[in-house]
Amino acid sequence: MSDHRMRVGRERSERTQARILRAALQVFADQGPDAPKIDDVVAAAGISRGTFYNYFDSVDALLAATCAWTTRESIESIEEALAGVEGPALRYGLGLRLFFARARSDPTWSRFVGRVWRVDGLELPDRDLDEGLDRGVFRAASPTAMRDLVRGGVREALLRIGTERTAPEYGDHLTELCLQALGTDPRLIAAVMEHELPEGLEEDESP
Amino acid sequence: MSDHRMRVGRERSERTQARILRAALQVFADQGPDAPKIDDVVAAAGISRGTFYNYFDSVDALLAATCAWTTRESIESIEEALAGVEGPALRYGLGLRLFFARARSDPTWSRFVGRVWRVDGLELPDRDLDEGLDRGVFRAASPTAMRDLVRGGVREALLRIGTERTAPEYGDHLTELCLQALGTDPRLIAAVMEHELPEGLEEDESP
Repeated sequence: MSDHRMRVGRERSERTQARILRAALQVFADQGPDAPKIDDVVAAAGISRGTFYNYFDSVDALLAATCAWTTRESIESIEEALAGVEGPALRYGLGLRLFFARARSDPTWSRFVGRVWRVDGLELPDRDLDEGLDRGVFRAASPTAMRDLVRGGVREALLRIGTERTAPEYGDHLTELCLQALGTDPRLIAAVMEHELPEGLEEDESP
Repeated sequence: MSDHRMRVGRERSERTQARILRAALQVFADQGPDAPKIDDVVAAAGISRGTFYNYFDSVDALLAATCAWTTRESIESIEEALAGVEGPALRYGLGLRLFFARARSDPTWSRFVGRVWRVDGLELPDRDLDEGLDRGVFRAASPTAMRDLVRGGVREALLRIGTERTAPEYGDHLTELCLQALGTDPRLIAAVMEHELPEGLEEDESP
């Protein structure tokens, strides 16, 4: 094949994969992780079963790929926005505020993450949590319990944002409560909440 | 029919229903709320499809009944244990500690509640939360966000308790963090954690 034909083929293949992943995001967001069948995704993406199997072996493989795509995309864009922001409480708090802003702008994504996300690729927020504990900025008898409370609370919030109309300040309120849960000094919490939200969170739907 | 025969029939019917609900608890705990089919429950309960349909019309009806049974049973036993305990922080904190103790003693129940529970029948803890806010014992910019954080955190904790071996003090640590999230005074948190756990939480598997 010529270079040109190979490039065209590769681009078409990437477009089809993106189309399957976007359809999968919607299907998993609506039905949860366990119920969807390949036919649901095939119908939502408007492709044939044969085409589906060119890209993924099973619903499980598709779920894993959709999670990886979503994680990479959201965590990376927050990491980018936080470049240059110093201090675990400020980084963690602003990261949460950005995460909720993203959720509000894309309810399907929010529902997907809330219902389905296998938690993975969370090295970035976990690093801030660990650093906060080390430095005594956060206080918790058990780091595991601390992570579970925040993770579960964020998940519950994403489900709410993804399924109903929430007040614009809802995400900020939840961020404030998470910081309070972590035992953060009230003055530091106030500083996080008054801080301007960093930019760099572009809408980019393509995987 | 004679009174005797009617009584025998009713008792048998109650036993069968209990058997279906116990099997359903296990099936939903393992597979989540959306995946199970009637055949899964029928197999787990060791009954026929016909018998199943004498009691429930659908998997959805069964899920609702299993949730109602679980809620009634757990919330009522905690309410009983808390009779005579005064003050929203103490009641709420001890209620959480009892809830996690129950979860630890019954991992299937814990997994079921964590994965499946449609939150309902939570008037008891909600009353303590509201009273705590009214009295200024708890502090939160948004009662909705406050409820979501705690509810999500508790759910995440139940999943962990139901799927792996947690440290005996894990439930207490999570309770402490929840109270911290609610903005409770540290001395009051210490009082909750040092308080003896009230009794009245009997294991009762029959619905």
